[in-house]
Amino acid sequence: MAPPLDPVLARIDADLPQALDRLLALLRIPSISTDPAHAADCARAADWLVADLRAIGFDATSRPTPGHPVVVGHGGAGGRHLLFYGHYDVQPVDPLELWHRDPFDPAVEDSPAGRVIRGRGASDDKGQLMTFVEACRAWKAVHGALPCRITLLLEGEEESGSPSLVPFMRANAAELKADLALICDTGMFEGRVPAITTMLRGLAKTEFTIRGPRRDLHSGMYGGLARNPLHVLVQILGRVHDAEGRVTLPGFYDDVDELPAEIRAQWQGLGFDHKAFLGDVGLAIPAGESDRTPLEMIWSRPTVEVNGIWGGYTGAGFKTVLPAEAHAKVSFRLVSRQDPARITRAFRSWLEAQLPGDCTVEWHDETEGAPASVMRTDDPAFAAAREALSQEWGVPAAFTGSGGSIPVAGWFGSELGMDAMLAGFAKDDDNIHSPNEKYDLRAFHKGIRSWARILAALC
Amino acid sequence: MAPPLDPVLARIDADLPQALDRLLALLRIPSISTDPAHAADCARAADWLVADLRAIGFDATSRPTPGHPVVVGHGGAGGRHLLFYGHYDVQPVDPLELWHRDPFDPAVEDSPAGRVIRGRGASDDKGQLMTFVEACRAWKAVHGALPCRITLLLEGEEESGSPSLVPFMRANAAELKADLALICDTGMFEGRVPAITTMLRGLAKTEFTIRGPRRDLHSGMYGGLARNPLHVLVQILGRVHDAEGRVTLPGFYDDVDELPAEIRAQWQGLGFDHKAFLGDVGLAIPAGESDRTPLEMIWSRPTVEVNGIWGGYTGAGFKTVLPAEAHAKVSFRLVSRQDPARITRAFRSWLEAQLPGDCTVEWHDETEGAPASVMRTDDPAFAAAREALSQEWGVPAAFTGSGGSIPVAGWFGSELGMDAMLAGFAKDDDNIHSPNEKYDLRAFHKGIRSWARILAALC
Repeated sequence: MAPPLDPVLARIDADLPQALDRLLALLRIPSISTDPAHAADCARAADWLVADLRAIGFDATSRPTPGHPVVVGHGGAGGRHLLFYGHYDVQPVDPLELWHRDPFDPAVEDSPAGRVIRGRGASDDKGQLMTFVEACRAWKAVHGALPCRITLLLEGEEESGSPSLVPFMRANAAELKADLALICDTGMFEGRVPAITTMLRGLAKTEFTIRGPRRDLHSGMYGGLARNPLHVLVQILGRVHDAEGRVTLPGFYDDVDELPAEIRAQWQGLGFDHKAFLGDVGLAIPAGESDRTPLEMIWSRPTVEVNGIWGGYTGAGFKTVLPAEAHAKVSFRLVSRQDPARITRAFRSWLEAQLPGDCTVEWHDETEGAPASVMRTDDPAFAAAREALSQEWGVPAAFTGSGGSIPVAGWFGSELGMDAMLAGFAKDDDNIHSPNEKYDLRAFHKGIRSWARILAALC
Repeated sequence: MAPPLDPVLARIDADLPQALDRLLALLRIPSISTDPAHAADCARAADWLVADLRAIGFDATSRPTPGHPVVVGHGGAGGRHLLFYGHYDVQPVDPLELWHRDPFDPAVEDSPAGRVIRGRGASDDKGQLMTFVEACRAWKAVHGALPCRITLLLEGEEESGSPSLVPFMRANAAELKADLALICDTGMFEGRVPAITTMLRGLAKTEFTIRGPRRDLHSGMYGGLARNPLHVLVQILGRVHDAEGRVTLPGFYDDVDELPAEIRAQWQGLGFDHKAFLGDVGLAIPAGESDRTPLEMIWSRPTVEVNGIWGGYTGAGFKTVLPAEAHAKVSFRLVSRQDPARITRAFRSWLEAQLPGDCTVEWHDETEGAPASVMRTDDPAFAAAREALSQEWGVPAAFTGSGGSIPVAGWFGSELGMDAMLAGFAKDDDNIHSPNEKYDLRAFHKGIRSWARILAALC
């Protein structure tokens, strides 16, 4: 018999003031990973976490890396082996003058939307990672033990691109391999629907230069007869999408799966307000494939996006030049089984086939892309966690997608062969990476309760 | 009876060493108009010309302007009133280290292609303007008078965009108005066929910014749903030309005249080596309207050219951004009766009609455009001058076009109501605007003889 959950939830409610004090203590450590001046603060945050985890009974250590330390803690025994990932480093605080309080002197404040914890890292990710730690603490306090075997992996370089994490995973694979990874670094859908992110788009990138004439040409002397590489560029890139917003690259959709009916139904039930989503950034009209819903466009459909373009004379005034070169940076958001290398190769072939005979293209290779992450939601753990979240929030939780990549989710798959379950309680208005970051006190409280329920359901 | 030409030509041949000395003296004056440090040199060049013209009997003066002086000389009487235009200012000489001699210590040198006059301005335009002055000198020396009424207008700001010239023309219109303007600032076709340039393309320019989202967007969070202004830009600009190289703007060709049969026949007779012309700049394939000849493409057909394009992230590495803005600079080479304002208006309407409903465009107005110049070659003076050139060079002279604009030719029309006849003896390898500028000694000698013949034919 699983130990009862209700006393754990009651303990969480009673302990909230102390949990808050602990979070505020962690928030006071300015662990900005991108700034070498804060290296000691990062180490201090790691040490703080080690001490706190040991207080709960975890076998916790701060492990050196070429960058900032990784905190690893092991606790509990039996049942499913769960690995929790979070990060203790935070974003820089510039521009400081836009903060209405010292970002590292956190406090609970009243706001029009309720009580909030204000400070750098309150939401991203110290507040979120402490929801899990506090859930573990409550389990231990009430039942004397964690509900099953739990490993924590808390890194200090997430805001710096996690350069040490994959090597650390590889070097400690046996120690870290678990049945399922839990990640608390995401948000509620529209700030109101508890969400498990089960699809993350992948990413591929390429940059290229189209060359035509040997040198810039005078448009009077040569214009009309000589090839203008800018024309070649806009003509080819202008054909990447058809009139219906569909990508025209041959084979681009070959490895794209249709959404399972169950997920599609969940998404339809979310009532996504795409007008508000677009309206917030000054837009009004969905620009993607005309036969897809707005949520599909950002969560489950692949894209080709021109991220940068330049060529010719771009200064003040005019130079009537036919330039020798035209440049672009293009990226691809990938879904399902799309392979980053195959997609960039297809793009190259497609573009090269359209080049006039006297133009050439030079490709500037970028870092390796990442495929999409698609979690095996048919694993009963996902349904169980979803039910746990629904009960806590009184709103049916949803399996959602994420248009962006969360690299660590992919690394659990590629490096450790584990699925990852992403659940988090942030809101779009948390100002992460911006001045006046906050985390709703309610999110912190119900986040702790959510993890307590998920542990009960999964362990 | 017109006075005989042969003694004039004989005098030119005999006087060539002295003519050369005079040109070298003028070339020694570093009259760089763009460099304020050389203002006194510009004035000195003007004074030198005034003195030389007075020596031939011209009533010549150096006339102040807000910039460098304009030299005006009047001579002769009766017959047709001809106005000759040239410029005494020269281009800067940087990079000086690429010159194999001091650019202002000119000399006659032997080169693989024959004897050349080496020095800044040897071709552009001191050497060319002196061909006309020397022709006048020979007429005066042999016959005691110029063959008809001749006015010289020699400016010192051509390499700086001629800011003082139009105001000077307006202020002195009655004095300058003549029956025909002669301009010696062009070249031989392929360096071998004497040419009268009778068509000059006009120019219109526009710059614009397409705006979509209010701010740059993350391509993961928004990509696929939100409008990317770079896509809008490449899609619209990619449609400016159809697959046959034809401009698709409605009405673009309405005011474009077909080439007169006689001119078309002349151009066909020129045997233009477009493969060599393109090959020199690393190209091979004519890129314009597929049903037009290469010479038509650069001389008598209008163009739309993208001269600059930029938007999104263009630095090192990658930012997977959907930018808020996309920018381009576009210019139009105009022919026949195309109106610059009407063409830019048509482009604006065409572009705006294709904008998605939630994008806007902002137009950045440029200086007023200029229409094409098309000379009235049915004026018998053109046939007469052509015949004179054919006789001098032993090659049938041609009426040619020029893809670029020569603004002064248009100003004679717009400000003084005169046609202009452009004839010159420069070659493409004269290195004008570059180090080691030269003018073939043969071009100088036969150029003087050419003007003597043209004066005989036109006066």
